[in-house]
Amino acid sequence: MEVRDPLYGLIEYDNTEEKIINSRIFQRLRKIKQLALASYVYPAAHHTRFEHSLGVMHLSGKVATSLKLDNECKKNIRLAGLLHDIGHGPFSHVSENVLEKYVDRDILKKYKADNAHELLSIILIQQNDEIKNIISKEHIQKITSLLQVDDKRSIEHDIVSGPLDVDKIDYLLRDGYFAGVKYGTFDLEKVIESLIRVEISREETQLGITQEGIYSVEQLLLAKYHMNVQVYQHRVRRITDAMLVKGIEFAIEEGIEEIISMYNIKDTPEFLSDFISFDDETLVRIILSKSKGWAKDYFEKIANRMLFKEVFEIEINDKNFDDDIQLASIQSLSESKTNAMSKKIANYLKIPLEQVIVDRHSTSNPTYRLYGKIDTNNIMVKDEGTKRRYQFPSVSGIFSNPSIEPRKEMLYVYAPLDIRITKENSHEFKIKKKQKILEKIKEVLS
Amino acid sequence: MEVRDPLYGLIEYDNTEEKIINSRIFQRLRKIKQLALASYVYPAAHHTRFEHSLGVMHLSGKVATSLKLDNECKKNIRLAGLLHDIGHGPFSHVSENVLEKYVDRDILKKYKADNAHELLSIILIQQNDEIKNIISKEHIQKITSLLQVDDKRSIEHDIVSGPLDVDKIDYLLRDGYFAGVKYGTFDLEKVIESLIRVEISREETQLGITQEGIYSVEQLLLAKYHMNVQVYQHRVRRITDAMLVKGIEFAIEEGIEEIISMYNIKDTPEFLSDFISFDDETLVRIILSKSKGWAKDYFEKIANRMLFKEVFEIEINDKNFDDDIQLASIQSLSESKTNAMSKKIANYLKIPLEQVIVDRHSTSNPTYRLYGKIDTNNIMVKDEGTKRRYQFPSVSGIFSNPSIEPRKEMLYVYAPLDIRITKENSHEFKIKKKQKILEKIKEVLS
Amino acid sequence: MEVRDPLYGLIEYDNTEEKIINSRIFQRLRKIKQLALASYVYPAAHHTRFEHSLGVMHLSGKVATSLKLDNECKKNIRLAGLLHDIGHGPFSHVSENVLEKYVDRDILKKYKADNAHELLSIILIQQNDEIKNIISKEHIQKITSLLQVDDKRSIEHDIVSGPLDVDKIDYLLRDGYFAGVKYGTFDLEKVIESLIRVEISREETQLGITQEGIYSVEQLLLAKYHMNVQVYQHRVRRITDAMLVKGIEFAIEEGIEEIISMYNIKDTPEFLSDFISFDDETLVRIILSKSKGWAKDYFEKIANRMLFKEVFEIEINDKNFDDDIQLASIQSLSESKTNAMSKKIANYLKIPLEQVIVDRHSTSNPTYRLYGKIDTNNIMVKDEGTKRRYQFPSVSGIFSNPSIEPRKEMLYVYAPLDIRITKENSHEFKIKKKQKILEKIKEVLS
Amino acid sequence: MEVRDPLYGLIEYDNTEEKIINSRIFQRLRKIKQLALASYVYPAAHHTRFEHSLGVMHLSGKVATSLKLDNECKKNIRLAGLLHDIGHGPFSHVSENVLEKYVDRDILKKYKADNAHELLSIILIQQNDEIKNIISKEHIQKITSLLQVDDKRSIEHDIVSGPLDVDKIDYLLRDGYFAGVKYGTFDLEKVIESLIRVEISREETQLGITQEGIYSVEQLLLAKYHMNVQVYQHRVRRITDAMLVKGIEFAIEEGIEEIISMYNIKDTPEFLSDFISFDDETLVRIILSKSKGWAKDYFEKIANRMLFKEVFEIEINDKNFDDDIQLASIQSLSESKTNAMSKKIANYLKIPLEQVIVDRHSTSNPTYRLYGKIDTNNIMVKDEGTKRRYQFPSVSGIFSNPSIEPRKEMLYVYAPLDIRITKENSHEFKIKKKQKILEKIKEVLS
Repeated sequence: MEVRDPLYGLIEYDNTEEKIINSRIFQRLRKIKQLALASYVYPAAHHTRFEHSLGVMHLSGKVATSLKLDNECKKNIRLAGLLHDIGHGPFSHVSENVLEKYVDRDILKKYKADNAHELLSIILIQQNDEIKNIISKEHIQKITSLLQVDDKRSIEHDIVSGPLDVDKIDYLLRDGYFAGVKYGTFDLEKVIESLIRVEISREETQLGITQEGIYSVEQLLLAKYHMNVQVYQHRVRRITDAMLVKGIEFAIEEGIEEIISMYNIKDTPEFLSDFISFDDETLVRIILSKSKGWAKDYFEKIANRMLFKEVFEIEINDKNFDDDIQLASIQSLSESKTNAMSKKIANYLKIPLEQVIVDRHSTSNPTYRLYGKIDTNNIMVKDEGTKRRYQFPSVSGIFSNPSIEPRKEMLYVYAPLDIRITKENSHEFKIKKKQKILEKIKEVLS
Repeated sequence: MEVRDPLYGLIEYDNTEEKIINSRIFQRLRKIKQLALASYVYPAAHHTRFEHSLGVMHLSGKVATSLKLDNECKKNIRLAGLLHDIGHGPFSHVSENVLEKYVDRDILKKYKADNAHELLSIILIQQNDEIKNIISKEHIQKITSLLQVDDKRSIEHDIVSGPLDVDKIDYLLRDGYFAGVKYGTFDLEKVIESLIRVEISREETQLGITQEGIYSVEQLLLAKYHMNVQVYQHRVRRITDAMLVKGIEFAIEEGIEEIISMYNIKDTPEFLSDFISFDDETLVRIILSKSKGWAKDYFEKIANRMLFKEVFEIEINDKNFDDDIQLASIQSLSESKTNAMSKKIANYLKIPLEQVIVDRHSTSNPTYRLYGKIDTNNIMVKDEGTKRRYQFPSVSGIFSNPSIEPRKEMLYVYAPLDIRITKENSHEFKIKKKQKILEKIKEVLS
Repeated sequence: MEVRDPLYGLIEYDNTEEKIINSRIFQRLRKIKQLALASYVYPAAHHTRFEHSLGVMHLSGKVATSLKLDNECKKNIRLAGLLHDIGHGPFSHVSENVLEKYVDRDILKKYKADNAHELLSIILIQQNDEIKNIISKEHIQKITSLLQVDDKRSIEHDIVSGPLDVDKIDYLLRDGYFAGVKYGTFDLEKVIESLIRVEISREETQLGITQEGIYSVEQLLLAKYHMNVQVYQHRVRRITDAMLVKGIEFAIEEGIEEIISMYNIKDTPEFLSDFISFDDETLVRIILSKSKGWAKDYFEKIANRMLFKEVFEIEINDKNFDDDIQLASIQSLSESKTNAMSKKIANYLKIPLEQVIVDRHSTSNPTYRLYGKIDTNNIMVKDEGTKRRYQFPSVSGIFSNPSIEPRKEMLYVYAPLDIRITKENSHEFKIKKKQKILEKIKEVLS
Repeated sequence: MEVRDPLYGLIEYDNTEEKIINSRIFQRLRKIKQLALASYVYPAAHHTRFEHSLGVMHLSGKVATSLKLDNECKKNIRLAGLLHDIGHGPFSHVSENVLEKYVDRDILKKYKADNAHELLSIILIQQNDEIKNIISKEHIQKITSLLQVDDKRSIEHDIVSGPLDVDKIDYLLRDGYFAGVKYGTFDLEKVIESLIRVEISREETQLGITQEGIYSVEQLLLAKYHMNVQVYQHRVRRITDAMLVKGIEFAIEEGIEEIISMYNIKDTPEFLSDFISFDDETLVRIILSKSKGWAKDYFEKIANRMLFKEVFEIEINDKNFDDDIQLASIQSLSESKTNAMSKKIANYLKIPLEQVIVDRHSTSNPTYRLYGKIDTNNIMVKDEGTKRRYQFPSVSGIFSNPSIEPRKEMLYVYAPLDIRITKENSHEFKIKKKQKILEKIKEVLS
């Protein structure tokens, strides 16, 4: 069997994989957009977790073949790739944000999961009846282990989930293709070709690269950076994400039963069965039909693309916050302070508190060692002549700098008013507004 | 203002166009997929009429610039391009099929419309309040005229709606890009460059091409053919379309008010306001929540991708139907005979009549003069040296054949059973089944 | 070992192949341009037989893998692909034209060769010392057999040399890439995937396609057609080719030893050793330094891109030549009549006879069964369900027409004068000139 | 008039430009390969300065249009783009290296030229008869000024020759396309769109970018870096370049008249006329036919692709040269010391001195402010809202680091022996050889 993919051409799959693909739990991924409402700014970005999962399966196989892993191993990696996002909730990372807020740390630990959606993937693979009817217990064990946090590193695990995993490779290429930007590109063939097995100890292996692969991996990491700043953290995307999160939180506060239970992860059959009935549409529909409060307001605004505007933005650094106490306070902003801030800003802008969103984002510098979740020291480069190994930053021309600013922290305020509206007096007006908002923020910090 | 498009890079638009794009009536197009459920077979084909309309606007401008049309003219063409699909209903051509069935011929005539969705586009452009607030009456007049059937040909009209219109150019490239096939490709730059104005009479002009453009236009027409056979008439797509149509018809028969009124085109404010509240999702939701009969059954099957199978297919020709009466009868198959056929087949297959779909499709041969709606004789080729003009088929190496079979007519039967299931005895079993079904069909014809 | 190719990415090769690639006889191909002087019209078309040969080797392997041929077989096919053009002379097909004129039919027969350059490839593979030191006698036997005309068809032979051979696949894609046109494109992955083995008899197999492959093969054949009319037979290319051929023929007439012996194929060590010292540059250099006559004149004009112009063109058909005798005469134009024609035209144009070139070209209609050297009836299509086989034209929508005009024969006259020069009175002047030339031509025919 | 380019599609040109393109001096560029012998490692990299010059002309026009420069200005910029490389000698930068060695500093100053090939371009544009017959004196003045070093910056100058000039844009894209690597890519459309005019003073303007353009300019600079390390400084390319340079130098030492005079730039008609008779082929031919010494040996080796090997490589830093005097000595290596080194190494390797090449290369870190010839501080970024200006490094996330290692200096030794040959004992053998060579090098330094 095979299917067309715009990125890789024909993607083949075997009988077991076909059954998984045809299962209802997997088909659900067709209704979960990869980038939530990114199509509000990149109109063609409608792609879903379904295609992405097929792509990750495909790449898993390619990498396994390139590394000459045995068939059994390849099969497991492909299935892990296919299923790795099965636990994603509505609007992907939007749900993630809410789930993370409410998730019980004990259950994360119990299932050795790194975050909420991976926890859900693990639970679902282990307990969903459709999957259990297709894949044997033993294989399920192996597959979930590839998604779990582990003390030992292994090359299989690294392929599915590691600094150079196929998930990342696929989403960069795919998001770039559908957004129509040229930022996600790198030399895929060379990256795959240069992947090698590195033995760490008798029991541990990891995914490394040859020296020849350094430049294409540099490109991959830079692609991640450029996708981040241009697509993933695009202003419109930050705003729609923040509105979706806020809307869901209001729905929970309002006591809408379905929403409350969906965002409270359990490993019971009831929860799982409810959870997989949720997708982008159903979430919107339930909130629109059940809510009588702010949740409804937010989701109506979203549906009609009446988006909040960014009324304020500031970089969190010692230049902008020269008082040490203020700086410390904003760097580790508590929820109560955020609320106090919102209140003051709402007051000043003469709008309801519920219509002010204070949002924080950080952009990692890709040339710094710790790049987002990636520790580039964990990318091992092996000289196939001398057999010597190096940590990536020590041999990369670009990623070699320890002293660089590791990340930029930003604080944004969104609200349903267009301060650009008064175009005539705009500039001064805007500057004054901003100063005032900054004052309000600082009042809370000191 | 500008937006990213994967096909053309940055698409720019002016103030008026921005207002149209931001209007609710235009934003609705984000929820109407270009190719209905094509993503069931080409997983990435989620693109909508929204991006397509932006693309058509963009190409309209490109062509206008290349032809050195004046600014006023260019503006109208761009707006006509932007708005040409504003009247599309849920699942695009699926709704079209149903609308066509019920549309009043008088209203088509009144608005000089060629078909139902163009009729709706025309009415909406003329009467929708949002649009009327953005575009002046005079311009609306001009813009709709470009979408209307007219006695006189004009180059502006041809750009928006003609044998080489920008609508076709965009959908071939776009559908190919998102389906991930390589069938929709041709040399866009050359096509546009070779377009010229041809004077037919004092009052009429038309869009023609230079001799240099012959090959790229050949490619375009062949791209259309290959997209037809590989994507637009792909088996899975025929089946999903047929199921959607059947489901909607059952909903109408069942008396579901919203559905009945949506598919009964009027030019009243009430109808228009109702109509634009419909999109892919809302149609599904209404039928699923209101229907208690077959409509619900069909839409549930569709939602869960439990698709009918093609249990029978035959080409309608004198080899397969050697009795003249039978042939004549099947060539102009009446609704009552189709029903009778379905009944007999259902009986034979031991399934309810309501679960049998008899479907007809024809594939035009692109090298025949009348290729679908295109009469290639209407494509005028001009030798810029001698100033002589030729009809396209007379100068194209490939499209020059008058004697070829113009089209292939196919009859299909779909039903919710998998005759592939009995794989062991499959082949003989299948052949026997097919013979029996053919018998049933012929019983009705004679 | 591996090398970068713009079309296929990384091309890998083994030890034996590396030795061949590094041999002097193979490195010579770097100096033989794939499309002779096509860069005079498509400036970037500098690619050589060297890259093409690597590409053909690569595709041979891909096809062998897809067809699951055994390793031994794959190895031979790859080597045959790598070496298939080793016998090409300076400017590829230009030399071919001259070689064909002088080649001894017996030697063609002796080596079972279809044409001069394949004859040279066969002889060189069998007798060149470098090659014989790398490849065993037994393998050489097998490899040359794949390039020879044979009574029996075999799938290996068809891969290397047949209606759907990898040579064609590579040159269409490659010539398109470097010319920068979009005419050579088709779905390579699909073509390869759809290739299958068809058993003809106990002893014969052939390369066929599955039904799924019909459309991509249609695209491939159409790509060939469009490359033909747009690139291979582009006016400038016809003229440069004709000038090169004429220049070489003058050099032979003038008695330049090296040129005479080069174009007189023998299977002696001396000839072979001389032959492989020839490439594009050496040919030009020898003629420029040795000739004192017209050969020098032609090659100087070519070097300085002072190209002849097309002063006359006419289609050879019964409309243009309505006298039956004339038509018959021009359809099978003898050399003496061509000369007589040239003389009359030269006289009329008041230029030396040696500066008139009468050139003939035919363009096959790709939808006709016999398309150039391809008999599309030889492309077998197999329905993998029913196991039935069809000849390609009987199942292709486009290539199904027996009655179409099979080919277009053109007669051109080139000369070193620009009849466009007199731009003011141009049109009438040109028409008159053309009529006069036609008169001269007809005088010879009757 | 128009011509096909694989990168930009159709490139149009006007009458004046056509005359230049058809001139013999411009046609000469067809015979000067863009990347010398890069095709020895990237087989398809045959592209020449001819196509590159057309591309630069095309981009010049695009940028001029995007910046709304007036027609006169656009015309000049296009012509400057077309002619900027007219002074390139055989094998482009190879000749440059030799020319630089012998060029008179006074003549550089007289013509305000930055380097030898630009000097030649300036002289040729001003004094070549063909050009002077096509372009008026006044325009020639303007055009050459765009290529000259100037005290004042201007936006026109920056387009043709500056940190973001179209020369760089074209060669990165073009070299990547023909080498078949994916390293040269960036978002061309976005780069051009984001270019703006920045006023520095009443009299000076410069090419800057908008804030929106930061990321695509980052990509462009990174593309330059990756092309450098992967293509321009590829081992095989370093070796072929070094061999060509060495061969030419031997020819000069040997006293071959043509070579001596070619590499001794003068602004006399005789010199210019001789110079433009030189291209890649003629240089090789002259040396092969005239030399009886080492020059012949080198050029024969090159012609037969019997390349030297890299027998030694070391980074020049304080780790490898921990003696301060040694380090200082090697950092500013004099010619006499280089010769002494070669002698000792030749002695040790038991090969003639003339077969040892000591080569130095430095790779700039692109994230350092001074990146090759580019001072990224000279790229001005303008916030179109606040009208504030920033230096590029201060607003780029990646290029912001002042403390990074600015460049890596490497020392290589090439010789005609394959130290990989003894594969069995290889590793130790190789290490020992390297240590010995290092000893020899250090002997000279101390």
